[in-house]
Amino acid sequence: MSKFLRRLGVGAVLILVVLAAIYFHYLPLALLIIAWSFLAGREFTALLNRQGIGLPGLLIPVVNLIYPVLYVFLREVGKTRPASPGMEAVLIPMGIVALYSLVAKPPRGPKLAFSAFAVLYLSILPFYAVLLRVYAYEHLAHAFAVVLYPLLVTWINDTGAYLFGKWLGRHKLSPEISPNKTWEGFIAGLVVSVVFSTLYLPSFLPPVNRLEAGLLGLVLGVAAQVGDLVESIFKREAGVKDSSSSLAEHGGFLDRADSLLFVVPLFFYYLT
Amino acid sequence: MSKFLRRLGVGAVLILVVLAAIYFHYLPLALLIIAWSFLAGREFTALLNRQGIGLPGLLIPVVNLIYPVLYVFLREVGKTRPASPGMEAVLIPMGIVALYSLVAKPPRGPKLAFSAFAVLYLSILPFYAVLLRVYAYEHLAHAFAVVLYPLLVTWINDTGAYLFGKWLGRHKLSPEISPNKTWEGFIAGLVVSVVFSTLYLPSFLPPVNRLEAGLLGLVLGVAAQVGDLVESIFKREAGVKDSSSSLAEHGGFLDRADSLLFVVPLFFYYLT
Repeated sequence: MSKFLRRLGVGAVLILVVLAAIYFHYLPLALLIIAWSFLAGREFTALLNRQGIGLPGLLIPVVNLIYPVLYVFLREVGKTRPASPGMEAVLIPMGIVALYSLVAKPPRGPKLAFSAFAVLYLSILPFYAVLLRVYAYEHLAHAFAVVLYPLLVTWINDTGAYLFGKWLGRHKLSPEISPNKTWEGFIAGLVVSVVFSTLYLPSFLPPVNRLEAGLLGLVLGVAAQVGDLVESIFKREAGVKDSSSSLAEHGGFLDRADSLLFVVPLFFYYLT
Repeated sequence: MSKFLRRLGVGAVLILVVLAAIYFHYLPLALLIIAWSFLAGREFTALLNRQGIGLPGLLIPVVNLIYPVLYVFLREVGKTRPASPGMEAVLIPMGIVALYSLVAKPPRGPKLAFSAFAVLYLSILPFYAVLLRVYAYEHLAHAFAVVLYPLLVTWINDTGAYLFGKWLGRHKLSPEISPNKTWEGFIAGLVVSVVFSTLYLPSFLPPVNRLEAGLLGLVLGVAAQVGDLVESIFKREAGVKDSSSSLAEHGGFLDRADSLLFVVPLFFYYLT
């Protein structure tokens, strides 16, 4: 099978799985995000261990499960309805990694700091997709379209930045972190995000006018590209191009969602 | 002036300042904690930079101010009453350090991870002292005595561990992290914490019986010693004995409060 066809096939399967998970119920989406947090936690551990941090393979993946599993448990079994995460969501995992760091081999400080950061980055941030889905389906008329909006604006931004950057790119954006990115691509990504937002959002979120939708598109476009660059920091310092090859030409689980990690929480706080 | 007298003098001033801040109003306590977060942030930055992380001196101190200053502002000017911190309290500072990490010199990953960890460790955790004071004075009859409890149990635990460890200590607790600590001291610290809790807490928190108070003393005693060891990790890896010499023989601001950082939030969640 050619690389192009494999890329297309994996991409189509990913999109269908995500759309179906969002459409039917919050629970399949939660399970998808939980699985992602676990797998991205494994990839992130591997990136860190290439730099000699020496974390056990399952520490970050397992502490990443604590908050999302507790959320689902409280909703399904406890019949309470947890809102956006309280600080416990990160203090409990942090307490566990602090205890671990006391019995770990040196370097202990980086083990503790990177694990606590990983909980925020790969367990709390992605779970805002579930919080967004729950909020939208409880409060909004066009819930599916609204939940899809941050995904669409991110994909459109990434694609716009990539294509225009290839075509017109001259000035490097951040040569040390991500050498292929250009200012021309960055700006083009923002322009398509703004245009898309002004066309899409006012239809599905009626009180939002075109100006506000455009501003939101601008902010989320910047957040998408910041998210992409932040992940690149960790890949670059580990000396690899992709976080793994689990998704064939799409790279790893972390690569596929890096831009979304900052976009979805920002959109959630904008909505609520 | 002899070292002993200076130690006694600085200690007495610290105790009086803390007691007065707790007694009169939540605001002086909040200002004290905010000042502490700033100063401990400077000490923590210095510890990290001794290991080549290369953080600018004011990044962690300044992002440490965001949540506590916002809390005070909302209470005093916005006239809302923020409860325990939502995740925004750490996501906003994290967004700022993420943006900073993109324009920083390498190593960027450690800059980002340690700064995000520092916000949790030196800004969110200590501010639970303010949340505890606000909660206690709004809901409890013996508020002052209850707010004092985690401080007293920590000081008694530290002192018990130190004195008994000096007297009976044979078996090293964690020779690589903190070579003077012994299992005998650790256990003695827990015993005095339990005894003190069973005598003190039932008088001031009436529904709590002696058994529950003793268990709480045990848990908080462990938390105090874990807090002490966690700070020692960062000092040891930086190759220093104290976080600074700002408080003369008491060491730095971070040294003086390390044990409290885990004890106060745990007690707050137990109460609420």
